[in-house]
Amino acid sequence: MAMRQGKQTFVFENGVYVLAGASIAGKKEGQGPLGMGFDMVLEDDHWGEDSYEKAERRMFSQALDMAAQKAKLAAENIDLVIGGDLLNQIISASFAARDFSAPFFGIYGACSNMAQSLLLGSLLVNAGYCTNVLCATSSHFSSAERQYRFPLEFGNQRTPTAQWTVTGAGATLLSSVRGNISITSATVGKIIDMGIKDANNMGAAMAPAAADTLSAHFSDTGKTPADYDLIITGDLGLLGKELAIELLQKKGYDVSANMNDCGCMIFDQQQDVHMGGSGCGCSATVLNSHLLNGLRTGIYKKILFASTGALLSPTSSLQGESIPGICHAICIEGGKV
Amino acid sequence: MAMRQGKQTFVFENGVYVLAGASIAGKKEGQGPLGMGFDMVLEDDHWGEDSYEKAERRMFSQALDMAAQKAKLAAENIDLVIGGDLLNQIISASFAARDFSAPFFGIYGACSNMAQSLLLGSLLVNAGYCTNVLCATSSHFSSAERQYRFPLEFGNQRTPTAQWTVTGAGATLLSSVRGNISITSATVGKIIDMGIKDANNMGAAMAPAAADTLSAHFSDTGKTPADYDLIITGDLGLLGKELAIELLQKKGYDVSANMNDCGCMIFDQQQDVHMGGSGCGCSATVLNSHLLNGLRTGIYKKILFASTGALLSPTSSLQGESIPGICHAICIEGGKV
Repeated sequence: MAMRQGKQTFVFENGVYVLAGASIAGKKEGQGPLGMGFDMVLEDDHWGEDSYEKAERRMFSQALDMAAQKAKLAAENIDLVIGGDLLNQIISASFAARDFSAPFFGIYGACSNMAQSLLLGSLLVNAGYCTNVLCATSSHFSSAERQYRFPLEFGNQRTPTAQWTVTGAGATLLSSVRGNISITSATVGKIIDMGIKDANNMGAAMAPAAADTLSAHFSDTGKTPADYDLIITGDLGLLGKELAIELLQKKGYDVSANMNDCGCMIFDQQQDVHMGGSGCGCSATVLNSHLLNGLRTGIYKKILFASTGALLSPTSSLQGESIPGICHAICIEGGKV
Repeated sequence: MAMRQGKQTFVFENGVYVLAGASIAGKKEGQGPLGMGFDMVLEDDHWGEDSYEKAERRMFSQALDMAAQKAKLAAENIDLVIGGDLLNQIISASFAARDFSAPFFGIYGACSNMAQSLLLGSLLVNAGYCTNVLCATSSHFSSAERQYRFPLEFGNQRTPTAQWTVTGAGATLLSSVRGNISITSATVGKIIDMGIKDANNMGAAMAPAAADTLSAHFSDTGKTPADYDLIITGDLGLLGKELAIELLQKKGYDVSANMNDCGCMIFDQQQDVHMGGSGCGCSATVLNSHLLNGLRTGIYKKILFASTGALLSPTSSLQGESIPGICHAICIEGGKV
């Protein structure tokens, strides 16, 4: 099939364009190295709502609205909203999509949601099913801590390999209408589980999935790491990034010169986040600010964007299960018009 | 666009075939009116596992394996597994997909998962992206009670409008390879929320979404209820079904003669399930046994299969939120070869 390369990669030859990206982030993220690039930065993590969950949902809604506005499209011109988040039953995405009032596809790929929604949206736009698709995701440090670990009030100590869930939401508007930035191919990931059981070491749990999907992408497309200005994973953090580079080396791909990780970029080491940022909002905010800006201004010509997800739940961990990881990779190119 | 009819409906003109369907159900479901049709019936709900969650995951795995076996396809011939379930972070689907070892798309549409996975799978097969896609979902009475309501040991009394979560899993193998049963169109749903807040009355919460999607399907395609031998919703239950029929009547569509609901069919009123069955496994097991058998044997020629989902979480309910509903509709036809 013409639309397929190798076993896991889809090629988008009919034109899938990024019309707009929008990002909103928390105060701590705003103080980080990429803070200036976000469209909006919250002054506090409650944002006037009476729960962290409601604040997260409002960020999700805000990202949807801002992306549509930037592309000058009304909600009725959006054919589909694709989104998910980390909260149980993806309530941030579902309630935000309810208020946006477009047809909705809920997804769950943990922190791989940004890449998964872009992959799915690109498949539908390239095939001619949809003209405009809005892809979005969110996470919130405080709602994630409460659900996955401990309520903040408990004041537990974080382990050295812990990462900091990004408070933020990002939305990307994909379209068949010509624009400057396009998505040209995407590789769908397999679930990889190397038996890691430490829920405070997600980077190590996800690194094998990242290496598996990236090497599948290179092998399916015949491309090499040097074909990309930047290969950027979602939220492996400092430790996971090193592991992924090492695993890829063993598979014969040297990405040490041009691979980075959104979780390593969004916070400064002075911000006391241990291994770096994590959460769906991590790659979503970095893509929809820094990376799209870089593609728009020509700093990057071609990037491979690969959000990573750890498919655990507190229940699976309590029942002694290991942590399956997944990663989807999206090739995004600038200056194609 | 040729592949699109109206605002929410996609038409599959290139051929999307149902090569196989597999179903596995719990003991109570096996004793119900459709019990004889399931491929497997468990003797007890633990199935030898040490938690209900592990039993549910094993059912999910079993359904994937059986569907692939029935279609005589090895795992490496499956291009994609699409699935989700009700457990937090869709662990049943993710862990089963890990063991199946194919590329994976996690979805979440609550009990609309069976229709949502078929919709997405049909879009990808029809466009030529994939040859074989395995769509699946599951639910388990005991894992759902524990997560959404109370642990069984608590012995709480069920309210009159409560439904009984089906213990079961279903998997459908979609393919571009010609078969007797085909999916010819599908309508993607919007999230509809009429303000119902009673988490023990899901039928009422989901009925408006069912009415909205079914009427969108009729209006997009120009078809009428009489064009279908059966219009079958997922898990509205007795009350929700009546409400949906009434709401459709108000929209000008009389479905009273040929609409039924999987939740009303899977249990007998003597089985003390109050309003009927619910859960992802409800429409998944009924589709992959009774409905596909009916299409295969000519009892049905054309059905409109519309799984329904309530997009709440215990957290959203505790925070005073109402229950958003969603419904996706799939047109399945028999005897097309």
